[in-house]
Amino acid sequence: MTDASLVRAALPRGFADRDQTDIAAADAMMAKIREVYALYGFEAVETPFVEFTEALGKFLPDQDRPNEGVFSFKDDEEWLSLRYDLTAPLARYVAENYDRLPKPYRSYRAGWVFRNEKPGPGRFRQFMQFDADTVGAASPAADAEICMMAADCLEALGIKRGDYVIKVNNRKVLDGVMEAIGLGGDSNAGRRLTVLRAIDKLDRLGPEGVRALLGAGRKDESGDFTKGAGLDEVSIEQVLGILNGGLDFVANPNDGRVKFGDGVEGEKIPTGDNNIAGSYRAGDGDGDQNQGLKELAEIEALVRGAGYGSDRIRVDPSVVRGLEYYTGPVFEAELTFEVTGEDGKPIRFGSVGGGGRYDGLVARFRSEPVPATGFSIGVSRLLAALRAIQSPIVAAAESAGPVVVLALDRDQKSMANYQRLVAALRGAGIASELYLGQGGMNAQLKYADKRRSRVAVIQGSNERDAPGGPQVTIRDLKLGAELAKATKDRADYLELRQRAQFAAPVADLVARVREVLAR
Amino acid sequence: MTDASLVRAALPRGFADRDQTDIAAADAMMAKIREVYALYGFEAVETPFVEFTEALGKFLPDQDRPNEGVFSFKDDEEWLSLRYDLTAPLARYVAENYDRLPKPYRSYRAGWVFRNEKPGPGRFRQFMQFDADTVGAASPAADAEICMMAADCLEALGIKRGDYVIKVNNRKVLDGVMEAIGLGGDSNAGRRLTVLRAIDKLDRLGPEGVRALLGAGRKDESGDFTKGAGLDEVSIEQVLGILNGGLDFVANPNDGRVKFGDGVEGEKIPTGDNNIAGSYRAGDGDGDQNQGLKELAEIEALVRGAGYGSDRIRVDPSVVRGLEYYTGPVFEAELTFEVTGEDGKPIRFGSVGGGGRYDGLVARFRSEPVPATGFSIGVSRLLAALRAIQSPIVAAAESAGPVVVLALDRDQKSMANYQRLVAALRGAGIASELYLGQGGMNAQLKYADKRRSRVAVIQGSNERDAPGGPQVTIRDLKLGAELAKATKDRADYLELRQRAQFAAPVADLVARVREVLAR
Repeated sequence: MTDASLVRAALPRGFADRDQTDIAAADAMMAKIREVYALYGFEAVETPFVEFTEALGKFLPDQDRPNEGVFSFKDDEEWLSLRYDLTAPLARYVAENYDRLPKPYRSYRAGWVFRNEKPGPGRFRQFMQFDADTVGAASPAADAEICMMAADCLEALGIKRGDYVIKVNNRKVLDGVMEAIGLGGDSNAGRRLTVLRAIDKLDRLGPEGVRALLGAGRKDESGDFTKGAGLDEVSIEQVLGILNGGLDFVANPNDGRVKFGDGVEGEKIPTGDNNIAGSYRAGDGDGDQNQGLKELAEIEALVRGAGYGSDRIRVDPSVVRGLEYYTGPVFEAELTFEVTGEDGKPIRFGSVGGGGRYDGLVARFRSEPVPATGFSIGVSRLLAALRAIQSPIVAAAESAGPVVVLALDRDQKSMANYQRLVAALRGAGIASELYLGQGGMNAQLKYADKRRSRVAVIQGSNERDAPGGPQVTIRDLKLGAELAKATKDRADYLELRQRAQFAAPVADLVARVREVLAR
Repeated sequence: MTDASLVRAALPRGFADRDQTDIAAADAMMAKIREVYALYGFEAVETPFVEFTEALGKFLPDQDRPNEGVFSFKDDEEWLSLRYDLTAPLARYVAENYDRLPKPYRSYRAGWVFRNEKPGPGRFRQFMQFDADTVGAASPAADAEICMMAADCLEALGIKRGDYVIKVNNRKVLDGVMEAIGLGGDSNAGRRLTVLRAIDKLDRLGPEGVRALLGAGRKDESGDFTKGAGLDEVSIEQVLGILNGGLDFVANPNDGRVKFGDGVEGEKIPTGDNNIAGSYRAGDGDGDQNQGLKELAEIEALVRGAGYGSDRIRVDPSVVRGLEYYTGPVFEAELTFEVTGEDGKPIRFGSVGGGGRYDGLVARFRSEPVPATGFSIGVSRLLAALRAIQSPIVAAAESAGPVVVLALDRDQKSMANYQRLVAALRGAGIASELYLGQGGMNAQLKYADKRRSRVAVIQGSNERDAPGGPQVTIRDLKLGAELAKATKDRADYLELRQRAQFAAPVADLVARVREVLAR
């Protein structure tokens, strides 16, 4: 039976509520991330959710609905938008406060961002990112620091070494490939972005999906068609060549060469059938591509020097990041382990964060260039992974409910008595509450179960008028549940029953409840 | 010199950034609030920022710009809005999850809310509220609990007893006055709301401002005119009579009467010139007004029984709350102390939170009534007050910056050395960073000052090549600043200088830095 005058109790698609456990787990995770970032000298700064639309720029990935990638509204004569990431607002913040900020300016922030995209399973229109950025440092040492911090962060969260890797690449190298296939210059910016986004989907769509997106386009399972970059066969093979690790050289800091993939340093990586042999070699020139390779070599030298091996941070040519604003090194934090899902199938979490250098973003607001580099964690994906491996960080968030003091007699004097019991427990720092709903003992115990409470405190007339002075009955709800399942033939049944529910003088309430909570 | 192609680095009016100190202080305050709420058995739940516009309803106070009180955007065929408070979304959440939630359902949440209003000094379009609500409990015991929790909360935050009061009133009583002046019935809902909002502004505008808003209207200092409720003189006096405490009776639980104001229980409160004598008396009838008085009497009895005196929680007839959805008891948390502002003038913080019973809000979604009551804290106002009284809760948030390891030699080997110093400090849990910007020693020390760092670590060639093995110079930046101001004639000048900057073997780095940090 539905009443037409009633308002529908539902959320728009792509938005979700969070319950106690979700919130506590995410908070615990983010507190740990903050701790690591603070250890690196980063400080908190937060921007509001709303910015002038023009301040955010047009850097959104995956605008499946053109002009609708962001939520916007008109305010008097100006357009405002909800932020779609935390980087564009940070660029505005730094530009606005440039003179008073220390430089380099290291900062971090966690915050909700919004995408006005087609929502899908596991794809939300409001989600949380946790960013760290260093603005005002052009040196690859700043990029190296970000990578090391990301690695430290994942380990601090309980992800074991070997179960993650921070992959590094450089857009300048990639841009050279773009030029080689005729996509250089401003007029090709759109197609370059399409190519980047295609490569960025390798993880999700595999090489054939990427090949389709580099060419005419791709139809997904739902039948939706995504237009491709329109590259010819030769160009497609050149681009795919990078992803195959099809590079016939390795590089190291000493000879200006960069080592890709898992190969032992100095070893040659096999050349693929369609590689773009030689085009990645760092030479003596000052071209962007050489510059990019030198930066990668420097990052590699710095992280190795600080003791971070290739099991933790390494160069990987398939990393591109789907955002247009990156100008140099790009990073991706990937989880490499698998867990078995409820359906028995293996689950890989893949990328849980990424970032890179965006030297042009602050410059949009200022007439001088301002170098910047940063890293962003996708909070819900990382949280799902921590739960899958039962990281102690988030496991601690699964807490029991409060002690429930039952309200059996509702007269004013009894209620005042119950209030005093609750107050005594709270005074001792024990979360507790007086039952305030309708219903008798059974309804109230059911409520306590629903709250995942460990203890119920009962005081009816028997307890109140006990010969030796007022008492309470203390019930261990966990033991009580076990007792209900146990047979009476059990040797320790009586002992169990005595432990599951017992009377105590009111004066001993706090001590006895503590005893049960400590079981 | 401005470049027309540059984007303006600015925020829309009414939005603000938050820096490290603001964030840390607010986080510390909210952690303490959470602690108190959890002790009362409340659990966290959060809703997203966006809801269907119709789910939020039209309960906004002060829509200076009609139809623009909320930020809204069209999504396909439906209107979505940013939430303007946390109560309407909670009502939607409870209705949507009604069957699986424990009842009564006690929950809390902190969250940003948005008002599309004319921004002004100290008036933001994005601000944070911290709410607690009990849904599914019709008993005044639930309202009493909320009031006690609010009082506990303020004391836990460092506000002394006597410096705050939780004021309680009942909308049902007020509604009786409305009926008496001919504003009963659905057709007068708009005018009733105007009257409520006028009364709600007593604190800010004083009696004459309220009088104007009850009558023809009021012109504010900026010249803007607000239309009034259009009451006649007699009706205005009747309404103002309530605010004067002009009630010729007191009440207590035993005789169904309510005690207003500070009067000793049983004592008669002086009658004002324009009081509405008698119309507040609780009789034997079952009318709404009597019902309201009985509820107030019960709340008073419960909180007194639990040991909360009238210095902490008391009935006050001037409390109305400017929201239309309240249906019974309403609360307001008021800070009663004054501090001296920077201009020498006294500052009163006044109301830092409020709430009440809203039994009709969940019912909008369901065909059965669902009782609910809640309390909302205005985070930034309360935070400003805690800062003014230098509450230890927020004072601890003023932390020093990280240890800065200076980068004097930029060759790869030296940089790797510096990285190792930083890593050693971090390994010991000391926040520290390698300077990554341009500039020499002076620029780097200036940076450390700007970060409010306590310690700088210096290693140039002298330290590195010291005869007894590599050393570092450790500089106490606070003592260094004192030293710079001190005259060399000071008896302890040399000792001070030795403490402000000294050399140490690299192996002692962590121990010696700790020593300085502990000073």
